[in-house]
Amino acid sequence: MSITIPHRLYLPEAEIPTSWYNLRADMKEQPDPMITPNGDLIKEEDLYPVFCKKLAHQELDSETRFVEIPEEIREVYKVYRPSPLCRAYNLEKALGTPAKIYYKFEGNNTSGSHKLNSALAQAFYAKDEGLKGVTTETGAGQWGTALAESTSYFGLDLIVYMVKVSYNQKPFRKAVMETFDAKVIASPSDTTNVGRSILAADPDNSGSLGVAISEAVEVAVTTEGYRYVLGSVLNQVLLHQSVIGLEAYAAMEKLDEYPDIVIGCAGGGSNLGGLIAPFMRDKITGKATGLRVVAVEPASCPSFTRGKYAYDFCDTGKMTPLAKMYTLGSGFKPSANHAGGLRYHGMSPILSKLYHDGYMEAVAVEQTAVFEAAKQFAQLETILPAPESAHAIRGAIDEALRCKETGEAKTILFGLTGTGYFDMTAYAQFNDGTMTDYIPTDADLEASLADLPQV
Amino acid sequence: MSITIPHRLYLPEAEIPTSWYNLRADMKEQPDPMITPNGDLIKEEDLYPVFCKKLAHQELDSETRFVEIPEEIREVYKVYRPSPLCRAYNLEKALGTPAKIYYKFEGNNTSGSHKLNSALAQAFYAKDEGLKGVTTETGAGQWGTALAESTSYFGLDLIVYMVKVSYNQKPFRKAVMETFDAKVIASPSDTTNVGRSILAADPDNSGSLGVAISEAVEVAVTTEGYRYVLGSVLNQVLLHQSVIGLEAYAAMEKLDEYPDIVIGCAGGGSNLGGLIAPFMRDKITGKATGLRVVAVEPASCPSFTRGKYAYDFCDTGKMTPLAKMYTLGSGFKPSANHAGGLRYHGMSPILSKLYHDGYMEAVAVEQTAVFEAAKQFAQLETILPAPESAHAIRGAIDEALRCKETGEAKTILFGLTGTGYFDMTAYAQFNDGTMTDYIPTDADLEASLADLPQV
Repeated sequence: MSITIPHRLYLPEAEIPTSWYNLRADMKEQPDPMITPNGDLIKEEDLYPVFCKKLAHQELDSETRFVEIPEEIREVYKVYRPSPLCRAYNLEKALGTPAKIYYKFEGNNTSGSHKLNSALAQAFYAKDEGLKGVTTETGAGQWGTALAESTSYFGLDLIVYMVKVSYNQKPFRKAVMETFDAKVIASPSDTTNVGRSILAADPDNSGSLGVAISEAVEVAVTTEGYRYVLGSVLNQVLLHQSVIGLEAYAAMEKLDEYPDIVIGCAGGGSNLGGLIAPFMRDKITGKATGLRVVAVEPASCPSFTRGKYAYDFCDTGKMTPLAKMYTLGSGFKPSANHAGGLRYHGMSPILSKLYHDGYMEAVAVEQTAVFEAAKQFAQLETILPAPESAHAIRGAIDEALRCKETGEAKTILFGLTGTGYFDMTAYAQFNDGTMTDYIPTDADLEASLADLPQV
Repeated sequence: MSITIPHRLYLPEAEIPTSWYNLRADMKEQPDPMITPNGDLIKEEDLYPVFCKKLAHQELDSETRFVEIPEEIREVYKVYRPSPLCRAYNLEKALGTPAKIYYKFEGNNTSGSHKLNSALAQAFYAKDEGLKGVTTETGAGQWGTALAESTSYFGLDLIVYMVKVSYNQKPFRKAVMETFDAKVIASPSDTTNVGRSILAADPDNSGSLGVAISEAVEVAVTTEGYRYVLGSVLNQVLLHQSVIGLEAYAAMEKLDEYPDIVIGCAGGGSNLGGLIAPFMRDKITGKATGLRVVAVEPASCPSFTRGKYAYDFCDTGKMTPLAKMYTLGSGFKPSANHAGGLRYHGMSPILSKLYHDGYMEAVAVEQTAVFEAAKQFAQLETILPAPESAHAIRGAIDEALRCKETGEAKTILFGLTGTGYFDMTAYAQFNDGTMTDYIPTDADLEASLADLPQV
């Protein structure tokens, strides 16, 4: 019996996963553990001042294979999940490729991205522990928006430190967060010691993600009833994001399909780690040895393809423990012309380990090529992709064009993490031909990598 | 057997309607016909210089009950349809109402609104007739975006006259349209006679929807291979938008549900007319005599509740034929503090006739109350509604609160036409308390109604 493959397949509500999948439980070798700058192992209790207890546990738990999703989180997942698995028929036809192209679309919620999957989980656990509020930082604003939606839903306070240059340039992102009752503060600010000291030395400082993290962490650890939350890189975030991969896996099973290639954009790794989780299990356990998993990163922030696999700080301010990961050095910043997210200096330790051990590939792409793919996709598939997501589209189109050359009818699955409604400045630059590319020089990377901690 | 009602019900792709439903075929009395300012009946051929032939036919065809949706349009409907029928469980719970609240959500496509349903149809027919391009006007930008997406898909040129004040204030709307290769021109412009004459008299003229329509129509009728298209008010638009109601009807049948009240926001009537079509058929034919149909309009532009049922021009420039409709006078403009769309001076002739004959009710609501509803809905249902759509939310919440008083467990269905990503200026005003209300005085309306054509 042949199955008719629809343009968009929505699993029924009853098939929203009941557990997240913890890929660490199936990895043959574990990622190297988080340590202090002195080289001491980080224990669960060490994380309690920063994360609420259940999340601290999830961060370090490499053994529990399936973690039950609390009923309260499943209830709100039902408002926007399952997300659709889409077949890009129009794109396939336009490319003239024999490949079948699927994408899992995570942008159909107000936050506009997959970030909501983990934001809701982190907000729920904080509320469940009886906390009063959480703090976070945001740059482009996708994470801040998802978190504001989540804290509003569960009835928590939220303070967002938003990089000042972004705060001034993106008033609409701020307005969305405020609609969800978040308190949004331009960073550096006079509300923290770190902010005041920076402003004292440089009153016109326009901020950075590193400084915003430092402010958010300072407030969390010094305010009764508050903790700090983060939208990527962490093991707990990849755990929550496994809901993307589990749904995609189940949907493909219904269609009697299995991908030859799974492709995701890579910044800190939250989407990529979530999407690939159940497919990577098959690869690790030998069920799908031929499967290729491809990370697509910006050439302007190439942590996988040009970074070093080493212990590094997770933040620019060097307040966090050290993680073993592919890193460009905690002081690395992508050049000013870089649009959208995917600007983190490091990479999820789980994904870093998989890449190091040969389970994954990575490619770096330039942003004008990314926006070409974004525009082609928007015109054919009626979704305006976020710049981040368009990296995966670029990767998928390139693989599909290779299939056209070789005549292979491969099955490609990529993650479409979100929509680009708040990234129109970048689209406008692309449309009028003023968008530029930038690749850091070897000397740039040597300089930022020279600062790695000695452990 | 009891049916579990999911938060979101998606019909399978195979159940996308194969025909649009033409409500006129079941109306006991027809809307008064379109006429010239001299009182002559408009014939199909009279419309050919402006609309392509199939659309001119649809505009005047009150007899064909079901109009087959061409395969090419159904193919692209599949990329974003069926849209979900959602149960607002969280909203019901927060209100403490015994009512069941459903909404049909049309915002899950790049254009962000239901406008795409008719834009695709109009673009297809233009392409199918061998035309080179179409022209239109846009104010807030929702229609221009949907049309740009559609012309890009079918390979037509598009010229959008965008009201100059909006062009300058909403560069992101312009950028979206340009991403879909539309040519966006600030109106008044030096590209038309009407534009040049206005600029000669007043070089700083900031434009109006009326002027933009005049420019778009002038270019369409004077350029080989071009026609003009419009996103609301017209009979053809209501026909295309019936896809909303047909899907909602089919989805409710699956859930063994039937609405007691159907609610939609009302500007020109495109969404409302589409949503209610199959339910109104039941009311007209006596199958659902108790059904209430409620239009919710802005108190600042109250065509149903305070307008006059009379023949009037469809545009401010008085270039179009006359339609019999509820109108505030073709020179009426809502006050400057009015946010979003729903600013048209008239109303769909079909809906006007139904309202006049007692098949529908209408209420007018003030915008701060609308944004209160929008914010409450966003926090509970994880969709940030467009200001237009939030009028329907306000209406639904008010009905649900009445059910709370009376203890009646009514079933409410409303149309959620789109998302508010490009309306954050208005949300920011609401958030910071600077949003104001405005209700035109009787003298204001007398003045704008004094100008009605004498026929």
